Amino acid sequence: MITTFNKLLSEALGTCLLLAVVIGSGVMAQRLCGGNDGLALLANTLATVGGLYILIEVFGPTSGAHFNPVVSMVMVYRGTLHRNLLLPYLAAQLVGAMLGAWLVHGMFDMSILQFSTKVRTGTGQWIAEAVATCGLLLVILRAPSARVAAMVAAYIGAAYWFTASTSFANPAAVFGRMFSDSFAGIAPSSALGFVFAEIAGACIALGLHGALGKSSMNLEE
Amino acid sequence: MITTFNKLLSEALGTCLLLAVVIGSGVMAQRLCGGNDGLALLANTLATVGGLYILIEVFGPTSGAHFNPVVSMVMVYRGTLHRNLLLPYLAAQLVGAMLGAWLVHGMFDMSILQFSTKVRTGTGQWIAEAVATCGLLLVILRAPSARVAAMVAAYIGAAYWFTASTSFANPAAVFGRMFSDSFAGIAPSSALGFVFAEIAGACIALGLHGALGKSSMNLEE
Amino acid sequence: MITTFNKLLSEALGTCLLLAVVIGSGVMAQRLCGGNDGLALLANTLATVGGLYILIEVFGPTSGAHFNPVVSMVMVYRGTLHRNLLLPYLAAQLVGAMLGAWLVHGMFDMSILQFSTKVRTGTGQWIAEAVATCGLLLVILRAPSARVAAMVAAYIGAAYWFTASTSFANPAAVFGRMFSDSFAGIAPSSALGFVFAEIAGACIALGLHGALGKSSMNLEE
Amino acid sequence: MITTFNKLLSEALGTCLLLAVVIGSGVMAQRLCGGNDGLALLANTLATVGGLYILIEVFGPTSGAHFNPVVSMVMVYRGTLHRNLLLPYLAAQLVGAMLGAWLVHGMFDMSILQFSTKVRTGTGQWIAEAVATCGLLLVILRAPSARVAAMVAAYIGAAYWFTASTSFANPAAVFGRMFSDSFAGIAPSSALGFVFAEIAGACIALGLHGALGKSSMNLEE
Repeated sequence: MITTFNKLLSEALGTCLLLAVVIGSGVMAQRLCGGNDGLALLANTLATVGGLYILIEVFGPTSGAHFNPVVSMVMVYRGTLHRNLLLPYLAAQLVGAMLGAWLVHGMFDMSILQFSTKVRTGTGQWIAEAVATCGLLLVILRAPSARVAAMVAAYIGAAYWFTASTSFANPAAVFGRMFSDSFAGIAPSSALGFVFAEIAGACIALGLHGALGKSSMNLEE
Repeated sequence: MITTFNKLLSEALGTCLLLAVVIGSGVMAQRLCGGNDGLALLANTLATVGGLYILIEVFGPTSGAHFNPVVSMVMVYRGTLHRNLLLPYLAAQLVGAMLGAWLVHGMFDMSILQFSTKVRTGTGQWIAEAVATCGLLLVILRAPSARVAAMVAAYIGAAYWFTASTSFANPAAVFGRMFSDSFAGIAPSSALGFVFAEIAGACIALGLHGALGKSSMNLEE
Repeated sequence: MITTFNKLLSEALGTCLLLAVVIGSGVMAQRLCGGNDGLALLANTLATVGGLYILIEVFGPTSGAHFNPVVSMVMVYRGTLHRNLLLPYLAAQLVGAMLGAWLVHGMFDMSILQFSTKVRTGTGQWIAEAVATCGLLLVILRAPSARVAAMVAAYIGAAYWFTASTSFANPAAVFGRMFSDSFAGIAPSSALGFVFAEIAGACIALGLHGALGKSSMNLEE
Repeated sequence: MITTFNKLLSEALGTCLLLAVVIGSGVMAQRLCGGNDGLALLANTLATVGGLYILIEVFGPTSGAHFNPVVSMVMVYRGTLHRNLLLPYLAAQLVGAMLGAWLVHGMFDMSILQFSTKVRTGTGQWIAEAVATCGLLLVILRAPSARVAAMVAAYIGAAYWFTASTSFANPAAVFGRMFSDSFAGIAPSSALGFVFAEIAGACIALGLHGALGKSSMNLEE
């Protein structure tokens, strides 16, 4: 029997650790890579891929491992998550994301409360966030469930590089990254644009998912 | 029931995203890696591996996830794809590939319509493309189907480095990359040589596949 | 029938090879990367991920592949390891860890007996070790057993980058790394702080594991 | 029905492609990485891991995918390979390895016939080759067969970095690399020392395999 408390703790803790991985590996990369942003993003990418994979596997059986308001909204739309749980899930994700940033600052001897000054804005960035979120949702909606953790992780690893925004694809990640003036940060003034683009990307994904029809899954499914 | 529309949309969308991954991660790498081509190709490789893996898993159950005219031709030859679908598949792949390049230009604030100026020609490059395509076809023809997505991705990751041409191995990829004057591009004048070499490599693969005989697949197959 | 001798040899040999991978890849990285610590940690990370994965798969069926006193203690607490085996397991792990450092020195023509001079201390480092060990234990306690090797390896790969301490998360690793004045080393004077932080992290993991409740594992478990 | 011809073609072709991956990715890395040997070895490693994984999966069901005289000898010793096939297997592997080097030279516009001038000798190197081969054999002897391809690839990836010799662990690889004066080469004068060390490592592996006893494989085996 999984209680609502179990589920909300799972979403909060998982999102906290996800943001700790994303932001923390960015801080470490910035410190070690001496201004080589390509190498820093590569390290940031690989840490995120490994961390995301295990977080989805570990927390998936408890809460679904959404860690992402857009994913929770789509799950309510499809009937996988009860709508009464939507607001609590979102709250858990946002609180967890902020705590993840603060945990990083505690580990790396940085001042706990800070805000990013990295402006991320413009049409190209918004198209990129829409593409990134659309791709993420297509993976989640169409992947065989036994492989969804590995596939989401592999997708995000690719999307860090092929989208111009380095693929946030997650309003909770946007929220958490606002609280860290480091490699993975985003200025609060840029946040709303990213969130709107992500929601647009999710809507496009739902349309494409319908247009692609049901797939003939392999026997193992 | 998967309709022909579903299949063609799947091939077009999948090839579009594949080229977006290949070209987009090349653009990002070029911007971040400051002239370090080794690091840029490494990032380009890892993004392609992750992207290819999930695209084959996501679109495979709908259309077979060919994304590649040579693969579609071999599938017709083997009876896996109906010959009436060959031309529509090829058209969907070529259109998708071009759109993938344009999507990248939209995300990275580059002019949409452009052509590569990177000349890739000569005997070494053509041998490399034949080897790259031959290897790809051997993987597709002989891999256990449950692992083909991971295996194709791993193969392409290796082939980016061990073939002198960085392994296009796909006429649709050649077509799409013509439209981007960036890291992963190929000058239109070099395209035909690559395509001929790829077709030659596919023929060699079919010969080797026959000479290797049927394999005793492990029990799980 | 697996004898106690088999089990202790497995723990000693596995921990020896684990430390050889961790320390040896650090030495190789230091020699080849010319002061680029970001690149060196990246190589060190990827070698550790690959090595840890296969060591857990190879030695798991014989001894459980703990290679880590904190893991063995938790296994006794949960009844998976008989308490009479705890001290022998710990001794095998510590001896193996030391021999792993020495094996590296033999391979790399370094003086066999040496001690690290790299001081790793302070609140940030200790929080990091507690977080790293807590995460490791959550993976071990909650992962589907068929995937635990891949998941532990992926987790440690992420934790090398997102924790400020590069994630030792293992008192035997602390012990072995004391014996090598190289990239992965830790000064003996810093060891005790790390070990206490790791034990604290394990206790937090046990608490969180209880608070998260039993999970609805997928059917395959 | 798999014929002897199928098997020998499989060993020759697989070893040819393995050496093409190892040597070719070394040439590409050397050209692109501008003297950064750490980055070059990283690229060489990742290409080898991907290539080795798919080659074992593709050729394993036909010939066992040894690609390695030491592995074939151990398989004869254990009764998995008929002893009449040992010499033909070894000949196929050596011829394939040499052709792999030549294929690389053809692709990269290098003179086909050449010999390495890279001296690799001394006690440290020999210990390293013994350790590398011992580890490889332990993986092959003790891995669950469904995962052996991924595990061998992951092991070699780690061993490229944690052993001082970058882990040849294969007399056919030594033979093939003699024919290429590039990143992955080995001077012919250094070859015999490596081969003796590899055979010693294999003997140690057989001893350790016996001392570790039979393992309680997980249910799926």
